[in-house]
Amino acid sequence: MTTAVKTNTTMKTFEELESAVRSYSRSWPTVFKKAKGYKLWDEDGNEYIDFFAGAGTLNYGHNDEKMQEKIIEYIRNDGIIHSLDMGTPPRKEFLERFNEVILTPRNLDYKIMFPGPTGTNTVESALKIARKVTGRDTVVSFTNAFHGMTIGSLSVTGNSFKRKGAGIPLHHTVSMPFDDYVEDQDSIVYLEKFLEDSGSGVALPAAIILETVQGEGGINASRMEWLKKIESLCKQWDILLIIDDVQAGNGRTGTFFSFEPAGINPDVVCLSKSIGGFGLPMAITLIKPEYDQWGPGEHNGTFRGNNLAFIAATEALSNWETDEFSNTVQEKSILLSRAVEMIIEKYPQLKGEARGRGLMQGIAVDVAGLAEEICAEAFTRGLIIETSGPDDEVVKFLPPLIIDREGLEKGLEILEDSIKHVLA
Amino acid sequence: MTTAVKTNTTMKTFEELESAVRSYSRSWPTVFKKAKGYKLWDEDGNEYIDFFAGAGTLNYGHNDEKMQEKIIEYIRNDGIIHSLDMGTPPRKEFLERFNEVILTPRNLDYKIMFPGPTGTNTVESALKIARKVTGRDTVVSFTNAFHGMTIGSLSVTGNSFKRKGAGIPLHHTVSMPFDDYVEDQDSIVYLEKFLEDSGSGVALPAAIILETVQGEGGINASRMEWLKKIESLCKQWDILLIIDDVQAGNGRTGTFFSFEPAGINPDVVCLSKSIGGFGLPMAITLIKPEYDQWGPGEHNGTFRGNNLAFIAATEALSNWETDEFSNTVQEKSILLSRAVEMIIEKYPQLKGEARGRGLMQGIAVDVAGLAEEICAEAFTRGLIIETSGPDDEVVKFLPPLIIDREGLEKGLEILEDSIKHVLA
Amino acid sequence: MTTAVKTNTTMKTFEELESAVRSYSRSWPTVFKKAKGYKLWDEDGNEYIDFFAGAGTLNYGHNDEKMQEKIIEYIRNDGIIHSLDMGTPPRKEFLERFNEVILTPRNLDYKIMFPGPTGTNTVESALKIARKVTGRDTVVSFTNAFHGMTIGSLSVTGNSFKRKGAGIPLHHTVSMPFDDYVEDQDSIVYLEKFLEDSGSGVALPAAIILETVQGEGGINASRMEWLKKIESLCKQWDILLIIDDVQAGNGRTGTFFSFEPAGINPDVVCLSKSIGGFGLPMAITLIKPEYDQWGPGEHNGTFRGNNLAFIAATEALSNWETDEFSNTVQEKSILLSRAVEMIIEKYPQLKGEARGRGLMQGIAVDVAGLAEEICAEAFTRGLIIETSGPDDEVVKFLPPLIIDREGLEKGLEILEDSIKHVLA
Amino acid sequence: MTTAVKTNTTMKTFEELESAVRSYSRSWPTVFKKAKGYKLWDEDGNEYIDFFAGAGTLNYGHNDEKMQEKIIEYIRNDGIIHSLDMGTPPRKEFLERFNEVILTPRNLDYKIMFPGPTGTNTVESALKIARKVTGRDTVVSFTNAFHGMTIGSLSVTGNSFKRKGAGIPLHHTVSMPFDDYVEDQDSIVYLEKFLEDSGSGVALPAAIILETVQGEGGINASRMEWLKKIESLCKQWDILLIIDDVQAGNGRTGTFFSFEPAGINPDVVCLSKSIGGFGLPMAITLIKPEYDQWGPGEHNGTFRGNNLAFIAATEALSNWETDEFSNTVQEKSILLSRAVEMIIEKYPQLKGEARGRGLMQGIAVDVAGLAEEICAEAFTRGLIIETSGPDDEVVKFLPPLIIDREGLEKGLEILEDSIKHVLA
Repeated sequence: MTTAVKTNTTMKTFEELESAVRSYSRSWPTVFKKAKGYKLWDEDGNEYIDFFAGAGTLNYGHNDEKMQEKIIEYIRNDGIIHSLDMGTPPRKEFLERFNEVILTPRNLDYKIMFPGPTGTNTVESALKIARKVTGRDTVVSFTNAFHGMTIGSLSVTGNSFKRKGAGIPLHHTVSMPFDDYVEDQDSIVYLEKFLEDSGSGVALPAAIILETVQGEGGINASRMEWLKKIESLCKQWDILLIIDDVQAGNGRTGTFFSFEPAGINPDVVCLSKSIGGFGLPMAITLIKPEYDQWGPGEHNGTFRGNNLAFIAATEALSNWETDEFSNTVQEKSILLSRAVEMIIEKYPQLKGEARGRGLMQGIAVDVAGLAEEICAEAFTRGLIIETSGPDDEVVKFLPPLIIDREGLEKGLEILEDSIKHVLA
Repeated sequence: MTTAVKTNTTMKTFEELESAVRSYSRSWPTVFKKAKGYKLWDEDGNEYIDFFAGAGTLNYGHNDEKMQEKIIEYIRNDGIIHSLDMGTPPRKEFLERFNEVILTPRNLDYKIMFPGPTGTNTVESALKIARKVTGRDTVVSFTNAFHGMTIGSLSVTGNSFKRKGAGIPLHHTVSMPFDDYVEDQDSIVYLEKFLEDSGSGVALPAAIILETVQGEGGINASRMEWLKKIESLCKQWDILLIIDDVQAGNGRTGTFFSFEPAGINPDVVCLSKSIGGFGLPMAITLIKPEYDQWGPGEHNGTFRGNNLAFIAATEALSNWETDEFSNTVQEKSILLSRAVEMIIEKYPQLKGEARGRGLMQGIAVDVAGLAEEICAEAFTRGLIIETSGPDDEVVKFLPPLIIDREGLEKGLEILEDSIKHVLA
Repeated sequence: MTTAVKTNTTMKTFEELESAVRSYSRSWPTVFKKAKGYKLWDEDGNEYIDFFAGAGTLNYGHNDEKMQEKIIEYIRNDGIIHSLDMGTPPRKEFLERFNEVILTPRNLDYKIMFPGPTGTNTVESALKIARKVTGRDTVVSFTNAFHGMTIGSLSVTGNSFKRKGAGIPLHHTVSMPFDDYVEDQDSIVYLEKFLEDSGSGVALPAAIILETVQGEGGINASRMEWLKKIESLCKQWDILLIIDDVQAGNGRTGTFFSFEPAGINPDVVCLSKSIGGFGLPMAITLIKPEYDQWGPGEHNGTFRGNNLAFIAATEALSNWETDEFSNTVQEKSILLSRAVEMIIEKYPQLKGEARGRGLMQGIAVDVAGLAEEICAEAFTRGLIIETSGPDDEVVKFLPPLIIDREGLEKGLEILEDSIKHVLA
Repeated sequence: MTTAVKTNTTMKTFEELESAVRSYSRSWPTVFKKAKGYKLWDEDGNEYIDFFAGAGTLNYGHNDEKMQEKIIEYIRNDGIIHSLDMGTPPRKEFLERFNEVILTPRNLDYKIMFPGPTGTNTVESALKIARKVTGRDTVVSFTNAFHGMTIGSLSVTGNSFKRKGAGIPLHHTVSMPFDDYVEDQDSIVYLEKFLEDSGSGVALPAAIILETVQGEGGINASRMEWLKKIESLCKQWDILLIIDDVQAGNGRTGTFFSFEPAGINPDVVCLSKSIGGFGLPMAITLIKPEYDQWGPGEHNGTFRGNNLAFIAATEALSNWETDEFSNTVQEKSILLSRAVEMIIEKYPQLKGEARGRGLMQGIAVDVAGLAEEICAEAFTRGLIIETSGPDDEVVKFLPPLIIDREGLEKGLEILEDSIKHVLA
């Protein structure tokens, strides 16, 4: 592949007409034409294995055939495409299926809100309802959290480059240390002290918001014990617990919700990305009935009725009718864990550290710039994989959940070749 | 139609499973199944004329056949559905066509940003870049402005119910009187004085953001002269002018951009809703090249690469290759204006006032609750039409631009019948 | 007088050791040694007439003999000097005398708070209690208001140079047009509209704070009718009315409180400057009993028990036992008004405009820099007088209230000479 | 003493006329008439030993005779009492003496600013200049810090009761753990990590502000090593270090500045309380010349020229011409430390913990309400002593520095009797 030449011709349109804000078309300078399952092909016919999955949006892979069919059929029948929050059959079916397949079996009781079809929208709605319900303004978030780019979500996001992008100071939030943030210091003890001590300078918060596994922040997985303690603090102090499961949810870590193994029961849950099944914009906010104190239209949005997304989303829920899908994800997770450990051991020059859980894992590379080089090399060899973390120091494995053993192994092989090449 | 019974059975799912925040499914309690052009049908086969157009998202009507075909073909060929800001053929084609059909003929030079696929996302990106470029924090917005529901956009929105929903005070913004806000007082003189006087208590703003016709705020159309003066103040004080054309753009007022008749050249333009052509989530932010000072990824979002939307958007641009489409919209606008004037004159009990321009018009009804009653009655008679304004006092006409004379007349007839019924 | 030489020797200590923030020692570069009544003398024996009165702190002139005696006697007897808010005889006597001489005769019922001994402290306490009592955060202030330099007070101050000095954006406040701010536009209509319209973007405020005559902002005197309308709006909307009478109170405009002629009854009144009688730091906040909802110590300050100030303050209240003092101030005000009018008429080159009322008057000079030149010249001729207004465009007359006719005429004579000299 | 009866008669004026915000007149319900050295007497002739010293304002005791004389002489000679920042002999002498006696011998190079005569004023000026100089908005303060009651100072204060009093959320600040805040966790490691990690969610601050010994927050003394590390972090990250020495300075801990033993060189130092020597309102801000970037008058205040305070302040500086004064304070500190240790050991029911250093010590009593009871009992026995800490859990020893051995022992005796009585 001749990336240089490509940039000069293929990428010209993007370089000339698009804003300087574009990013992925810089890392992967090609035009992707086709995709199926865990593979992509560009205009020149080059094939790529996908260890990126639309940043967690394509858990069910590209172009699932059942979803394709249902969407096409719906369009053919002149189904309502755009409906705000009017009633439509796809909206109704999604509500019913989600309740039946996801909530009821897990003994979860939530009202389902359609807050606008993006991750940042569900987070903004979660912050609003927590503040409204409690009458408090502060929200506690964690170091290296990522919750979105609009001002409300950005205020609970840790990354300083993104925060500076706001152009204004970000208020009404307090950043606390995530699990295992400072070596040998217990972040729970710390948070607890700030809550208990009336002289701490930190007001009783409306909510604590967190990702159980921080996706953009470096694939930092919190321990189940830590999550339980957070929930317990929330109960003790009457603070709402918001789980942002936009990236870690939808089966990414092996269970539908990432917090299931902890046995906790969050007050608000944010879902987006793969909830739409097919890659179409969609988001929902789950709110405990007692906290669903919205006035009609108090939070709204033009695209909260994306019916094509509802159709694919409903289809995607079929994967959760039995434990099979979940089990295969967990099996593949073990494969991936072993590979990660093997790489770290085999290439000590990486000064690698294993991160994450489920099919959301990473290798933190403690050599400046190296993780980025590895991912760049992998692209030229046919693997789509990106970095994560405050200094782009983590190689982030995020394959579609439907990837088969062969695909996983092939991708890992390309990655290892890339590491060898870069270290050489 | 037996709305009461319907509510008890058909709407049960929404009432029981969905959040209390839902709104349109309360005003129009039915399940919409099918839609074509300017018509919708519900599950029971009732037909509705659409004077709402997805709150301005369906300017090109429902289920345009060419768009349907192209989308279906793309899906069938396993085209990339979700691409963030990676290069894809639909993204490339949209960029090129938008430049060729819209920007170049109007002598406009903008970089095109994909900020996430919703209106509030383009507004948030516009506010950010204005603050970054100027190093200032304040943004001036106007009374009864509506720019979106995330904290940044909400801070420049006037509606107090929506603002309170934030649960926190909204900062870094100053609300100034829109054109013709206070009778016999010139809002430009007022704004000018605040800018000039170093003791005014209002800091030099980063930007002024406005809708040329305020959609949610009551179909308040600013005069072209007023827009010119605002642009002139912006130039004089080195303030960025942001036009939020999310609702009034895409031909809604007769020209592609709503500000064209004023001959102004905004620094930043926000487009969403009908830019996607088919009702699929999409938004773009147009930024003058000298202000396109983003770092890569400084503002991002998972769904900024909605390829199905790009395909329909590109198809929709065909309407703008000649002046024909624009001319027909302007002709229908005249029809609508006349009807509005006729109604106001014929039904003095409405204490009606004509509002708006193009196919974005309204009748402000100066009797508390009456506008809402009229729209509710219209629904039972087969017309989808909503209210607008701080007290829901404006009956808002927003038909698809592709509506034919017959459809327009039929809708207006239902409206008049509804008025008669309600006044009786 | 040889100012230049003086600067080189006399002012050396200040120039070398003091912060660049110093200001008056720049305008009046000498060392003042002695003062009595309305006169000052510097180290070199030069005499100055005082048209400045410590920026309104020395309404009763310098070194009133009765105050001197009482203070000296108290010190000699080892009276408690510093007492925070402990009980002391001077605190007790002040409370009783203020109630008896000022509040009771005016049918005013206020609780008296000692908030710390400076103007900004009383303002901060007023803002706090208004927000606490109403549970709202926004405070409406006016263009060209000056309320102090600490962050709370600064946020309701108009001057952009001072505001920028905060180094942070100032929140929770809205700046509205003061009386007669924009020619031919009624600022009350404007404010009313913003309060009434639920889409105005301005939240219902906790309080409206104002100076009836803006001292630093350009000696802008509001009309009594305007004040009445403001009070009426406050009552209608359940907003607290705070009058900052720090500079305009204590008899400055002819009555003890500046708002007396308007017949209004503010909810909170801020007093400082001349309340201490002798020039010693002191401030009080008057709060209607129903709003005195402080917890003990909720606002405090080390120097809120300045007993020497209480002694002088109590002595100063003797001036208010009869109407005599008030009458003489009003007589002198008429003299001053005539002089101001005469000057404006006689020197059209000034493009002068009369400002203010009582012994708080000014000439707005519509020629850039001229007011400052006049005041600088006056200093060299033995008159202490300063400028005011956002562009230092107003020559500000603020003589001690106890000045006699001779002193007033002598000062005005020097001023006229200075004008002649500068215009020549 | 019959406190109950007293309240009914003596305190009537305060109860009826003063605001509910009053606090000390509740704890010590009497009228203090006379004071000398370390003793006070009330109207009924009861004598009290002073272990409170005006909350640290009366380090040099009550009514020092030299100060009395000089002040009386100045008043007798009609010296300028109130001068804003005009040149006067007392201001000049203070500047020169402070430079000569305090700064020069300690090799400190600071510009001296008069920011208004209260502690909160010097803190507000320090925060402003740090933000101006760095162009950053965030200031780091510490848990249980107390810096004042105006909005700027309150935003860096930890106490939640005081913070809530603001009635608005407090912004632009981050609260970090003070030295030894959480058992076995190193607060420096924690702060360092937040500064280093670009994903921490905490922006690079303009300044770090701290009290070396937290007065109101519970007499928490930081270790010298901790102070050195804080200074080192400030240097590394180009953050301004502000020491608020309002209570701990002026010799309170044995050296003029409390930070001298740490050998650090803060960028800004805040002094108030005892800087005025006699209990009169005064404050100064010391700013390194390179950071003295104020515009003239950018921060100002009416009472920044309190000449009586300057005279006493200059006299007070005489104590610092030799080491003698400092040495006697340190000797008395040892006495006090021993007594504190003895009490803790002798009365294990107190669950006492020793706090503080110099003549700023405390006993943290780990039994709810007990410290307050002890101080209340001490008052009835003739000792003025108050509590401190977020839950008023610390008995706070703050005698005048000039107290003699006899006075110290007598006070400690009364305290021990009170403890016995309360425990019985």
